[in-house]
Amino acid sequence: ELLLHLEDVHHADIAEIITELSLEEATYVVKLLDSQKTAEALMELEEGVRERILDTLSAKEIAEELEEMDTDDAADIISELSPERQQNVIAELVDEEHADNIVELLRYDEDSAGGLMAKELVKVQESWSVTGCMTEMREQAENVTRVHSIYVVDSKNKLKGRLSLKDLLTAPSHANISDVYIPQVDFVNVHTEGDEVARIMQKYDLEAIPVVDEMGRLVGRITIDDIVDFIKEEAEKDYQMASGISENVEADDSLLRLTRARLPWLVLGLFGGLGSVYIMKGFEEALEQFPILFFFTPLIAAMAGNVGVQSSAIIVQGLANDNLRGSLLQRLVKEVGLSLINGVALGILVILFGLIVGQDQLVSVTIAASLLSVIIVAALVGTFVPIILNKQGIDPAIATGPFITTSNDIFGIFLFFYISKLVLGF
Amino acid sequence: ELLLHLEDVHHADIAEIITELSLEEATYVVKLLDSQKTAEALMELEEGVRERILDTLSAKEIAEELEEMDTDDAADIISELSPERQQNVIAELVDEEHADNIVELLRYDEDSAGGLMAKELVKVQESWSVTGCMTEMREQAENVTRVHSIYVVDSKNKLKGRLSLKDLLTAPSHANISDVYIPQVDFVNVHTEGDEVARIMQKYDLEAIPVVDEMGRLVGRITIDDIVDFIKEEAEKDYQMASGISENVEADDSLLRLTRARLPWLVLGLFGGLGSVYIMKGFEEALEQFPILFFFTPLIAAMAGNVGVQSSAIIVQGLANDNLRGSLLQRLVKEVGLSLINGVALGILVILFGLIVGQDQLVSVTIAASLLSVIIVAALVGTFVPIILNKQGIDPAIATGPFITTSNDIFGIFLFFYISKLVLGF
Ligand SMILES: [Mg+2]
Ligand SMILES: [Mg+2]
Ligand SMILES: [Mg+2]
Ligand SMILES: [Mg+2]
Ligand SMILES: [Mg+2]
Ligand SMILES: [Mg+2]
Ligand SMILES: [Mg+2]
Ligand SMILES: [Mg+2]
Ligand SMILES: [Mg+2]
Ligand SMILES: [Mg+2]
Ligand SMILES: [Mg+2]
Ligand SMILES: [Mg+2]
Ligand SMILES: [Mg+2]
Repeated sequence: ELLLHLEDVHHADIAEIITELSLEEATYVVKLLDSQKTAEALMELEEGVRERILDTLSAKEIAEELEEMDTDDAADIISELSPERQQNVIAELVDEEHADNIVELLRYDEDSAGGLMAKELVKVQESWSVTGCMTEMREQAENVTRVHSIYVVDSKNKLKGRLSLKDLLTAPSHANISDVYIPQVDFVNVHTEGDEVARIMQKYDLEAIPVVDEMGRLVGRITIDDIVDFIKEEAEKDYQMASGISENVEADDSLLRLTRARLPWLVLGLFGGLGSVYIMKGFEEALEQFPILFFFTPLIAAMAGNVGVQSSAIIVQGLANDNLRGSLLQRLVKEVGLSLINGVALGILVILFGLIVGQDQLVSVTIAASLLSVIIVAALVGTFVPIILNKQGIDPAIATGPFITTSNDIFGIFLFFYISKLVLGF
Repeated sequence: ELLLHLEDVHHADIAEIITELSLEEATYVVKLLDSQKTAEALMELEEGVRERILDTLSAKEIAEELEEMDTDDAADIISELSPERQQNVIAELVDEEHADNIVELLRYDEDSAGGLMAKELVKVQESWSVTGCMTEMREQAENVTRVHSIYVVDSKNKLKGRLSLKDLLTAPSHANISDVYIPQVDFVNVHTEGDEVARIMQKYDLEAIPVVDEMGRLVGRITIDDIVDFIKEEAEKDYQMASGISENVEADDSLLRLTRARLPWLVLGLFGGLGSVYIMKGFEEALEQFPILFFFTPLIAAMAGNVGVQSSAIIVQGLANDNLRGSLLQRLVKEVGLSLINGVALGILVILFGLIVGQDQLVSVTIAASLLSVIIVAALVGTFVPIILNKQGIDPAIATGPFITTSNDIFGIFLFFYISKLVLGF
């Protein structure tokens, strides 16, 4: 009776319901509902939940679910299993072509076009006649949820162009495909990075893009729904990286997983803090005459950190969107200009604060001046570290957040005491 | 000759080329190329670049570009103009229906479904016959780049369901639409927030979704390409918010705009820092006996900030994705547990550091213990501030970054000295 009810529910909603159920109930639902529905629901589950359910299923049961999935989804799910279990599940697949396709997809890196594509697509050969290909095409279309474009290949399966369903319907039936197809088509290579695929599909408003291998042969197709998921996931990873979380985690993950994602960055921050302790020990003499300087270190560290994070965030986004223009020198001039404006404004506030609390004015001005220098240096670090990382082929996103905060804490505090010492002479 | 060349280039690429040109050259290209191409290119430009080009065009010239755009894009561009100029441009629109549609779209908030939808769609009435509607439909489809679904409405324009082109082609020609359409269709209301539209389209893998008004009448349609842009923009805004940047800016924006986006958060951080100065003045007595405590304040502030940002980032994402489960109490227990693990690990490192540098062991233990408390409090602040903001209807994303860092700096430093005073008794 519950089942009857669930048959009418969309698989994405079933996934949500499964998440709320106990493991036994969830497994029960997955086994009883027909695989076409549960296969798609499995795909929508969070990885942790899916893992627990798959653990309770036999290789044969998993294979039954995979038969119903598109090849891209099936490959993604298999790749989450242990190597032996992967073998066992693949061995249980009845549809051999489906199995071959899945095995092929498992070869590609998950964040590459090969890892994002599905084998399901509709293609025709340029030498075919329009009538001849209608039958063939109808057959292929059965396995494909949405046709989007029909791809045109030559006899060696090399991608030549595309055709819309409408073009095909309106073409004279005696024509050859080669007479009617559009020889321009956007495509990507199996090794193109996911970021780049997303950028192309967003730029040209594509709903699907064909994927070719090294020889230019059509081997798969990426659809926009999977790119939407990819964009969301990447944005979440970048957000987490900037927040000092190194694995893609969720609030409900295990303590172990959360600790593994968070502790390393905290340790980094701790070492930074211990570095500051060391630096201040070096300026211990100031304790006698100017203890007030030591009260300002959290302010200096905070400003250095905040400025650095702001600068790096803007650069990281500019690099990701590939819209940084102008030379490094122009960028340098701009960052220094911006830091001057901000630094002077903040310095004035510090001097005002000094006046209000009746602080020695030379000390106030010293603090304001060193704050200004700290802000300039922090902005330059925040700007150029991501640019340098990017040139080195390292994801610059790692440079925002704790990394910048920590190094700017150290630089900032050193610079602050160094300048104060020069001016105040302790 | 340049123009001949550009005619073959995709509008998104023309937009990139325009960005590289001087203002005069850009305007020249926009005026000379045919409007269908430049209209779409204009749409792809960054707001700042577009603004400068539109400033050089007359109302009539802008209207000519708008005639070629889909209503959603035209409305977005008009909304960037000053109110009088909006009037003038609308008055120059020749196609009255197009003008009416644009004016209607201008009414909606840009981040709502109404602000995201276009008026272009294909709809048929349920009472029509299949043959009768083919003609009508073909006419409508001319204005629509991609049909996706055909929507079915009743005589009062209320959304009843949908139909695929395939369904229509395979239906017996004497049938009525009411016999063949699918009465289930996902839809949103004009006032549904963009976030929610994106969530629904992502969840159900939709490429288009119809939009109804308060009366359930079909008034527009949102397509996935615009949702992809929306998702990207929202992710960038959230990333910037977490990095202490309050407006959506780019590296190449003006100094004024960048300062306006960045300075307020720096001022907030400065006030936080001055708060810390105040707190430390209250514990001045410690300077005599335990100056070392003052060397540790940047470490304490950094750890409080980092932990707070980590916790809040996870909660903010959980809230955005609507996948936080369990009660507040469970969450509290979990955060305390996680903080204990991290805090003990970091405390041990602090004690080890103390041993290595030959620091007074009681002082080391005191610092480690207060660090542990600071981490617990920071994690709780990071967790519950976004939850509370969210309950108040405030975007919790504002709570990550500088806001959490600053408040945790103050809490952390106070707690650190307070506990140290209790243990060491100065
Ligand atoms: Mg099943
Ligand atoms: Mg994959
Ligand atoms: Mg786009
Ligand atoms: Mg677009
Ligand atoms: Mg897929
Ligand atoms: Mg990335
Ligand atoms: Mg900090
Ligand atoms: Mg033009
Ligand atoms: Mg709009
Ligand atoms: Mg989806
Ligand atoms: Mg999907
Ligand atoms: Mg649109
Ligand atoms: Mg948001």
